[in-house]
Amino acid sequence: MGSVSDDVLLARAVLSRVSEPSSIPVWRVVAREGPVAAVEALRAGRYENDKFAAQALRVAEADPFADLEAAQRHGIRLVVPESDEWPHFAFAALDVTARRRVEEWEQGHREQSQSGELVPPLALWVRGALDLSTVGVRSVAIVGARDATEYGKWVARDWAAKLAGHGFTVVSGGAHGIDAAAHRGALSMRLDTVLVSAGGLDRAYPPGNAALFDEVGETGLLVSESPPGAAPARRRFLTRNRLIAALGTGTLVVEAAARSGALNTATHSIRLGRPLMAVPGPVTSSASAGCHKLIRAEEDPAYLVRSVEDVLGVIGSASDVSLLPIEQPRSRGDELADRVDSLDPAARQLFDAFPARGWTGPDRLAVASGMPTLQIIRTLPSLELAGLVEGSAEGYRIHRPARASPP
Amino acid sequence: MGSVSDDVLLARAVLSRVSEPSSIPVWRVVAREGPVAAVEALRAGRYENDKFAAQALRVAEADPFADLEAAQRHGIRLVVPESDEWPHFAFAALDVTARRRVEEWEQGHREQSQSGELVPPLALWVRGALDLSTVGVRSVAIVGARDATEYGKWVARDWAAKLAGHGFTVVSGGAHGIDAAAHRGALSMRLDTVLVSAGGLDRAYPPGNAALFDEVGETGLLVSESPPGAAPARRRFLTRNRLIAALGTGTLVVEAAARSGALNTATHSIRLGRPLMAVPGPVTSSASAGCHKLIRAEEDPAYLVRSVEDVLGVIGSASDVSLLPIEQPRSRGDELADRVDSLDPAARQLFDAFPARGWTGPDRLAVASGMPTLQIIRTLPSLELAGLVEGSAEGYRIHRPARASPP
Repeated sequence: MGSVSDDVLLARAVLSRVSEPSSIPVWRVVAREGPVAAVEALRAGRYENDKFAAQALRVAEADPFADLEAAQRHGIRLVVPESDEWPHFAFAALDVTARRRVEEWEQGHREQSQSGELVPPLALWVRGALDLSTVGVRSVAIVGARDATEYGKWVARDWAAKLAGHGFTVVSGGAHGIDAAAHRGALSMRLDTVLVSAGGLDRAYPPGNAALFDEVGETGLLVSESPPGAAPARRRFLTRNRLIAALGTGTLVVEAAARSGALNTATHSIRLGRPLMAVPGPVTSSASAGCHKLIRAEEDPAYLVRSVEDVLGVIGSASDVSLLPIEQPRSRGDELADRVDSLDPAARQLFDAFPARGWTGPDRLAVASGMPTLQIIRTLPSLELAGLVEGSAEGYRIHRPARASPP
Repeated sequence: MGSVSDDVLLARAVLSRVSEPSSIPVWRVVAREGPVAAVEALRAGRYENDKFAAQALRVAEADPFADLEAAQRHGIRLVVPESDEWPHFAFAALDVTARRRVEEWEQGHREQSQSGELVPPLALWVRGALDLSTVGVRSVAIVGARDATEYGKWVARDWAAKLAGHGFTVVSGGAHGIDAAAHRGALSMRLDTVLVSAGGLDRAYPPGNAALFDEVGETGLLVSESPPGAAPARRRFLTRNRLIAALGTGTLVVEAAARSGALNTATHSIRLGRPLMAVPGPVTSSASAGCHKLIRAEEDPAYLVRSVEDVLGVIGSASDVSLLPIEQPRSRGDELADRVDSLDPAARQLFDAFPARGWTGPDRLAVASGMPTLQIIRTLPSLELAGLVEGSAEGYRIHRPARASPP
């Protein structure tokens, strides 16, 4: 939080308290005017539009000092887009989809829908040792049914442990069944896992998973869009699912009934251009019906994955650069040239599309490179991990390192 | 057998005894010169080619009278391409692939491979009440592992029973596991099932399935390319698999290990242009590994099927015409026009491509209609079942019914 001004932090705390998650009008105003001006305008009642009435009323009651104090008491910090810990890489796709929706909305092509919009969060409350900005570069969202079978829970736990062992951060919700089994798998390896909760992080939901929340909140990361004290309403579960999808390099559905909430996360994952995978099971098991439905889908079918190796085959490629042995640095120039030479063709094509200086983003890179936006989003991490580009709240740019000190 | 001359029947019996199954050179000579002339030529040693040496030597030892007598003692009849019971529809695709191989072979593009050629059989030994010519129009090949799990055997038996109830003939091998379970399912409904054996039908292989062979040989149909007394050599199992694939409107793999023989049948099915389906199972079960491999295939993936309804969705369409209620015939002309009008667009396109008189075949229809050969093979049954075309040893032609007597 260090580099973020108190004004911005307080304004984001207010927005987090008063705005329903995934609101296109609020995101649009904040993106345009910045959080401080947006909150001032709300306080002054400057937005006459009905869509803001609820927020304008509640903004008077918001007490960001109290929320931030309560957070601190529970070891919770507020991560905002202006801070270093914001997961710019993971949320790049949400930025793209939100900008598209704003354009459609402004052109009158589309009524604002009340849910399911793929809009970045305005701020995130987090608790735990893990740095949120690292999540999404090499991670896997593991989701599925609360009413999981022993088979499903075994797969979730075993694969999560193995994927964590391969350097993947596990991302899931906080429910019983598949969610809990996935976290337990990563925790069994003492490795990174991220639990995205629908309610405030001062309490566990469901309460039966309190011990799991505590464990994740120490070595991993608890994440919520809701300030402390907020109850996990149904609407928050649905908007929460977009964060799970966005924080995963890909999404793996282990078990899901035909109408499971996990299918909602799967849909988000596809709309974000992330690879979707599903684990098959017996056709006699209703807990696998949703997985089979995803694999059979005519449009954007899920990959049928049989093993951790299959998962790595699907989502390993974009991020395996991080596993390359790092050579002793020679001169910075040689090293950079080598790194560019070792890029795969897609990464090279993308790197060549970067402007020599200044920030750019996936949309502009799509124009410059001729690559599909979704491929760009999948390719950016390899450039970032190779140290060739850097991401921030402004977008992406060629990485210009400070002069290296000799080894 | 009635309309087939004794000469032809005896010649085919000789060929069945002396020729290895799936031999392109033998099929080519028989197709050109007819079975009687081919056998005479073999007897006279007219084929100097090495490829016929083995057949030429053995032809002297062949005793077709003895083979036909032995068959009769076991209730086995010899079905030949010249007889009404020959499954012309089911084998149309084998004719196409065999003609292609002959062309490639004659043009020197391709050495004759010693196995796996998709060549029609020269004759079939059959036992049972079912008419072989009806098989393939509305049938499903159900194949899988000998070492099946209880899950796999349950699915094979349950689905076979239900598919039989929907008017599908079950086709499978004679092994323990999935094969036996599929036959048992159809038999439990007292409905049609076809067991294609690799050895002579005078004995069951494996012997433990003798009771199953007897039951199928009464109400269903036992089928073999081998004359009575022939042992089920390994090579015969592989060539046998092409008959299972060809006799199925589609092939369903219920359980198969990663290197199961059922995958060989699956490959044949794809090469014949038939829809391939596979049942998923737990990723922890090696008996489902082959099914998952088929579903994941990049080229020609198998349909993941969850239920009998899914199977009907895949292979029901081409043959559901047979389930349409048959109206009281009005005048023959009106009725014909109605039947043509009620065809789906593909069937209509195919019907329009038929010459006004004379025989045609899938290859020529492909040229005339602009439709892919495999689609033609899938569409022909609906025309045949609608009574608009008829199939025979010559190919297909517009059906010219005898003048109808008034109702």
